[in-house]
Amino acid sequence: MATQAYDVVDLIRAKRDGGRLTDPEIQWLIPAYTVGVVSDEQMSALAMAILFRGLDPTELNTWTNAMIATGDRMDFSSLSKPTVDKHSTGGVGDMITLPLAPLVAACGVAVPQLSGRGLGHTGGTLDKLESVPGWRASISNEEMLAQLEDVGAVICAAGTGLAPADKKLYALRDVTGTVEAIPLIASSIMSKKIAEGTSALVLDVKTGSGAFMKTPESSAELARTMVALGTAAGVKTVALVTEMNTPLGYTAGNAIEVTQSVEVLAGGGPSDVVELTLALAREMLDCVGVDIDPADVLASGKAMDAWRRMIRAQGGDPEATLPVAKHSEVIVAPASGYLTRLDALSVGIAAWRLGSGRARKEDAVQAGAGVTWHARPGDRVSTGQPLFTLHTDTPERFDRAAAALADAVEIGDQPGVTGPLVLERIT
Amino acid sequence: MATQAYDVVDLIRAKRDGGRLTDPEIQWLIPAYTVGVVSDEQMSALAMAILFRGLDPTELNTWTNAMIATGDRMDFSSLSKPTVDKHSTGGVGDMITLPLAPLVAACGVAVPQLSGRGLGHTGGTLDKLESVPGWRASISNEEMLAQLEDVGAVICAAGTGLAPADKKLYALRDVTGTVEAIPLIASSIMSKKIAEGTSALVLDVKTGSGAFMKTPESSAELARTMVALGTAAGVKTVALVTEMNTPLGYTAGNAIEVTQSVEVLAGGGPSDVVELTLALAREMLDCVGVDIDPADVLASGKAMDAWRRMIRAQGGDPEATLPVAKHSEVIVAPASGYLTRLDALSVGIAAWRLGSGRARKEDAVQAGAGVTWHARPGDRVSTGQPLFTLHTDTPERFDRAAAALADAVEIGDQPGVTGPLVLERIT
Repeated sequence: MATQAYDVVDLIRAKRDGGRLTDPEIQWLIPAYTVGVVSDEQMSALAMAILFRGLDPTELNTWTNAMIATGDRMDFSSLSKPTVDKHSTGGVGDMITLPLAPLVAACGVAVPQLSGRGLGHTGGTLDKLESVPGWRASISNEEMLAQLEDVGAVICAAGTGLAPADKKLYALRDVTGTVEAIPLIASSIMSKKIAEGTSALVLDVKTGSGAFMKTPESSAELARTMVALGTAAGVKTVALVTEMNTPLGYTAGNAIEVTQSVEVLAGGGPSDVVELTLALAREMLDCVGVDIDPADVLASGKAMDAWRRMIRAQGGDPEATLPVAKHSEVIVAPASGYLTRLDALSVGIAAWRLGSGRARKEDAVQAGAGVTWHARPGDRVSTGQPLFTLHTDTPERFDRAAAALADAVEIGDQPGVTGPLVLERIT
Repeated sequence: MATQAYDVVDLIRAKRDGGRLTDPEIQWLIPAYTVGVVSDEQMSALAMAILFRGLDPTELNTWTNAMIATGDRMDFSSLSKPTVDKHSTGGVGDMITLPLAPLVAACGVAVPQLSGRGLGHTGGTLDKLESVPGWRASISNEEMLAQLEDVGAVICAAGTGLAPADKKLYALRDVTGTVEAIPLIASSIMSKKIAEGTSALVLDVKTGSGAFMKTPESSAELARTMVALGTAAGVKTVALVTEMNTPLGYTAGNAIEVTQSVEVLAGGGPSDVVELTLALAREMLDCVGVDIDPADVLASGKAMDAWRRMIRAQGGDPEATLPVAKHSEVIVAPASGYLTRLDALSVGIAAWRLGSGRARKEDAVQAGAGVTWHARPGDRVSTGQPLFTLHTDTPERFDRAAAALADAVEIGDQPGVTGPLVLERIT
């Protein structure tokens, strides 16, 4: 670590008053915070000042690189194929990684997908896959490289060695109301993705009630910020801003989302999930110059093969029956007409309350818990027809989950207009 | 303490996004922070959000009262005379409390002056008085009441029992770049003054380079905020916004400021110090309805009598020779002409570096250290004529003190215009 050449209070004040931090200041600050020379209360005040004042592109590059420099970097250059990664900012029913990684792998590209667990109302990819009997999220770097060479796709837990500064800073932001600062979100995501060593990256930046960013404008700003960071670091980066006012597919949970993913790999599944999976696959293949239509690969069954090999390589049984929740309860349509709104946030909160997600990092999740919906916006519904099925092992959770869904739907006389799934493409 | 009815992250977010905190939220927050349920990093993020978003008058009243409620309240209602207190936001050469308290006491009013020590470039009243041999800053509440009844004036250390929430919050703000939030400054000062139980309060809000607030506008805003808080708490409160681009009098230090105060009490002293002392005395007397001209009392020698009795009551010897620094050094005028500027901040920093102030709470101060200047703006000076005398026990400090004074003065062809000492009166 550098010597204490700076007074952190001066840096906080400079940012607070609209100034900028220099490269040496940031390069001192980040490791100083990581080792505790700069205290949590000082970093939280600075994070709040950054939330109000922002970081300019130079500051943000330096900040991100300083976070990467606190930890390890991975290297996939020994592989015989190109690597491409995908990151979603998180949504409800967003299990796209599950069919997408084996699909792109089946096109001859390595997909190292270092993932996280869910916190709050958005699900975690690892939580979903852990509902597959035997599957394990933690593998060594050597196992990962071998699996990428052999199967092509790996979905696994990110090691603690990548950008430890980010781990500490994210935990701090989570309890201090400073999560929502676009530069800090962008550097948090991109520090890990750049440290991971992929040559290309496709970002799925969700926008809407069920997303972290509620408006297309803020989502596009986050997307542009991340694309700029990736590009500056030599990672070919593309972002799609995609719709998340409505949840994806027909399920939000863990095992029930895996089941839906397998339906997509089998050539079926909800049309919006298929559409987004193919759109992201095309971007990923385009990034690494592979001219194959992923729709053909999906139809050929090769993506399903890659899925099975990927699950088996990490100890899972792709043929095993997935866990089912012990209790279920149906909520029916209160009126007849067209479903004009299905609110992603409400559905996400209901699934979370049923046990599919966690309130604290230490909590366990229920593999079978979640919400299934039986209609999507534009569909006709009739009074008394099932609208939602709630799944949980702990039936005392039904009431609070149902409460979350009380205002989740609107039923009208007209089918309404459904907008596009992909709102913007940013390169 | 109230039960944890609130999630502090929700409160931080609400304030961050421009919302307001309700009375129950604030009444839960302040004691929760004081006992550690709300962490330092959460409070520092909230303080930064308040710095950007402010607190409205209702929030600020509740915040201040909640800080008062964490500690003790004093009560002077048993005294046979009215009480009035004065508070200065701090300046360079600002020893006005020393002549003012005995002057107002000599007019038949009780002046309970709970004071602090210096930190940074502004001096502390207690540090100055401790240069008087034998004088002690800490007295019991019973001694204080007896001295107020008998002598009329007490200048002593504030006990730790008044608004402990403020003590904790101030220490946090000091290391997190959140000192400069007007609502937090106002509630910090006023919580202690209201808890102190005075019936009237005169505020001297300094403005300029040597003050905490650099512009008349921000000083007036702070003054209005504090007057509103005092008035809402039933304390008759008046504020004067006064000039602090130029230091007061001719000295900045400890013993050397006591000497200058005694000159004022003897009927002499610098004209600006006399003017401000009388202006504040008139306000204090007016607050409690005493129709006496303090200039007559000063001329009569009664204020000097009260000073001697006040010093003696706290163990000091008003006739004792005051400490003198072991070393001194003279800085001469670099040119001939009129002194057009004498920068308060530079002088304050020089005095601090010579040993009159402290960098950390734990540091000791030198009784004899400080700066004396031999000309004030408008005075004529000649090349080579002494401009400053620096005093210290530790001569290795001269260089850094002289460096602080390098740009402290401007010498021009014209005497320039000197503005008024009292810029605004706020009731």
